[in-house]
Amino acid sequence: METARVAIVGLGTIGSGVARLLLENSDRITRHAGRRIELACAVDTDLTRTRNVALPAGLLSDDLSRVTDDPRIGAVVQLVGGLKPARSIMLKLLESGKDVITANKALLAEHGPELFDRARELGRSIAFEASVAGGIPIITGIGQCLSANQIQSLHAILNGTSNFILTRMEEHGTDYAASVAEAQRLGYAEADPSMDVDGSDAAQKLAILAHLAFGARVDWRSIPRTGIDTVDVADLRYARELGYSVKLLAIAELVPEGLELHVSPTLVRHGTPLAEVRGAHNAIRVVGDAVGRVFFHGLGAGQMPTASAVVADLIDTVVGRTAITFRTLELWSGEKEAPVAARDPEKIPGRFYLRLGVDDRPGVMAEIAGVLGRHDVSIASVIQHEAADEEEADGIVPLVIMTHLAPEGAVSDAMAKIDGLSCVQAGSVRMRVRN
Amino acid sequence: METARVAIVGLGTIGSGVARLLLENSDRITRHAGRRIELACAVDTDLTRTRNVALPAGLLSDDLSRVTDDPRIGAVVQLVGGLKPARSIMLKLLESGKDVITANKALLAEHGPELFDRARELGRSIAFEASVAGGIPIITGIGQCLSANQIQSLHAILNGTSNFILTRMEEHGTDYAASVAEAQRLGYAEADPSMDVDGSDAAQKLAILAHLAFGARVDWRSIPRTGIDTVDVADLRYARELGYSVKLLAIAELVPEGLELHVSPTLVRHGTPLAEVRGAHNAIRVVGDAVGRVFFHGLGAGQMPTASAVVADLIDTVVGRTAITFRTLELWSGEKEAPVAARDPEKIPGRFYLRLGVDDRPGVMAEIAGVLGRHDVSIASVIQHEAADEEEADGIVPLVIMTHLAPEGAVSDAMAKIDGLSCVQAGSVRMRVRN
Repeated sequence: METARVAIVGLGTIGSGVARLLLENSDRITRHAGRRIELACAVDTDLTRTRNVALPAGLLSDDLSRVTDDPRIGAVVQLVGGLKPARSIMLKLLESGKDVITANKALLAEHGPELFDRARELGRSIAFEASVAGGIPIITGIGQCLSANQIQSLHAILNGTSNFILTRMEEHGTDYAASVAEAQRLGYAEADPSMDVDGSDAAQKLAILAHLAFGARVDWRSIPRTGIDTVDVADLRYARELGYSVKLLAIAELVPEGLELHVSPTLVRHGTPLAEVRGAHNAIRVVGDAVGRVFFHGLGAGQMPTASAVVADLIDTVVGRTAITFRTLELWSGEKEAPVAARDPEKIPGRFYLRLGVDDRPGVMAEIAGVLGRHDVSIASVIQHEAADEEEADGIVPLVIMTHLAPEGAVSDAMAKIDGLSCVQAGSVRMRVRN
Repeated sequence: METARVAIVGLGTIGSGVARLLLENSDRITRHAGRRIELACAVDTDLTRTRNVALPAGLLSDDLSRVTDDPRIGAVVQLVGGLKPARSIMLKLLESGKDVITANKALLAEHGPELFDRARELGRSIAFEASVAGGIPIITGIGQCLSANQIQSLHAILNGTSNFILTRMEEHGTDYAASVAEAQRLGYAEADPSMDVDGSDAAQKLAILAHLAFGARVDWRSIPRTGIDTVDVADLRYARELGYSVKLLAIAELVPEGLELHVSPTLVRHGTPLAEVRGAHNAIRVVGDAVGRVFFHGLGAGQMPTASAVVADLIDTVVGRTAITFRTLELWSGEKEAPVAARDPEKIPGRFYLRLGVDDRPGVMAEIAGVLGRHDVSIASVIQHEAADEEEADGIVPLVIMTHLAPEGAVSDAMAKIDGLSCVQAGSVRMRVRN
């Protein structure tokens, strides 16, 4: 039986998981690859750290040239994080004739066009299933399985850290800061979780998915995004009372003007699949013109789920499927561009959840409802409870309003007026509701 | 740009959908295939029926030799239903050098080994994404994307007709017969829906998935199955009261003895993804040792969702991915067998829902609880309402019991005893509860 020699560069958590799968589960991998896949070398700058995999002697090295100089190694799993030196290592690997598998979405979001062009020039391939939604096969799903469809929209929960924090706040009633601390304690959040909670990570992944699904080349920085750091535990309580959960949704949708992209905390109705995505899970709802709605749900991060995606890519690369896909799809190639609609997401028609702090006196509701009505914004539900003790002190009570579908910009304009009313406190909250 | 000439044999509903995608959406298909895919011929015995696709003149023919004799046609979509003449047409196509794409799960469940062996001998391929779960990419999902995993279990809703009927009964409170009639009226059920509602269709699909996931070669007839025709609308009401929905689940699970397979109406807890699968949708929950749980949800039938899967297969075939997968996976080849556990599903340990008709007199509950206790079956919940008017007449009232996890065979043995009690009417109901 044929043997394919492969290597891992970057033996951190994910890399160790990949090594474990290759070493411990070689039988089933052989069955799916039709050949033995032999881990020939693992390169890392740190030769001493404890890893949960028993590497055969001599396999671990800190010398990248053991990979680049070995012509018998055809495919390399590149799991160096960040941009530097990940980019230069990727180029070195491609230039030494290797097909590369990566999980580094930041690298693709920043340098995708350059890296893909270089790989094409060199006749090599890059596989990146693990870069979005960990173990969920969404890259193959969109790039291969749904390829007969004009994709019409993606609604996705792509950041497990944020979803864990929101679920925690919703189910335990703990506030944002305490829920972040809990996520850090359990290993679901980094010491500095800002890229996760501010929507940047989800925007990078959305840029990759949007490119696959719509051929749109998008700078992730241009995707409007709101993080979950603005979400108050009170909003989760009110949302639940209205029959909704709050999720950090990454949305890409074809509209007449082009492709609309944004990331923001969004109310999702209970009983719909997206609302049932709890904890560190990810999910993607894809609508295609032929297939209708398809929904994928699973673990979006973690050692073994991500390793599962990396090894699937490795098998695809070794057997030759990746080369075909890479050649036919021409991702991030110069010619393929699609118009991106630049609408401010605040102006996009939709339903909205509004929470205002208002004076606890007669006529206030009428005044606010009047402004909304004059802007053509119709009210679907209202929550105003009797003031709780701590609120009564200053005579301010929360007023929660869920609107019906409102015309473009109407809610923004109405809220600008409402925020200026003397009966309304500063700091009103606004979130989109999934249509 | 290169052009791949393809044909469709069997131009019914799905075939017309495939033709529509190829004719109307050729741009995006070209993008994913890296070449033009040209529909060169469509063969059907019926040249006159109305189809919702405008075929170019001369494309439709009732002569199969227009396909088999044309060496420029490489890939053929074969959508003839049933077994005869579908099997012989498939063989003819393979023998004339065509790669074949099919949606016919009955054909694969019956003649898979023969057809796959023949295709291998001839150096051809068979693609069958559309044969299970319509537009959901579960064949590629398991066969390719999760190939690093030892799959541990599949829990699937694979028959849209049954799920439509059960959803209808649950949401509208209509009885089984009326719900079937409604499904027929809306086109979700055939005039004779027996293969759908008795679990046969789900068992055929489960046999295909089990082969892909576990390498197990299973005769679908040997899969124990209970249909939904035994489900009473009262059971859906009680299940809902307990926080569950009833779904026709097809289950494949690795146990120490081998692979356990069965199809039966099963209680699934509200708030879990499977419970939220409504109407004609399908869903598959896959657990792999590395990836954990991955969940797929979408339309399992219908013209365009199925056509979406067929055209994805057609693209895979034309670009060469299918040939690679077909060669490496060696599906249904002689050597690959896996032990199948032959346990009677009634004996499998689990939780159970029981509904008994009992005498409305003191001591009955104690008697039944006593039998269960002596068989080590512990009671999790009980529903016994005051007798309704129509029930009071004969002094019989329904008693619903949900058990905790019970040891192997214990519930069967206890129920045999309970059914013999003088206070218990004939015809008790038993359904599994998903663990």
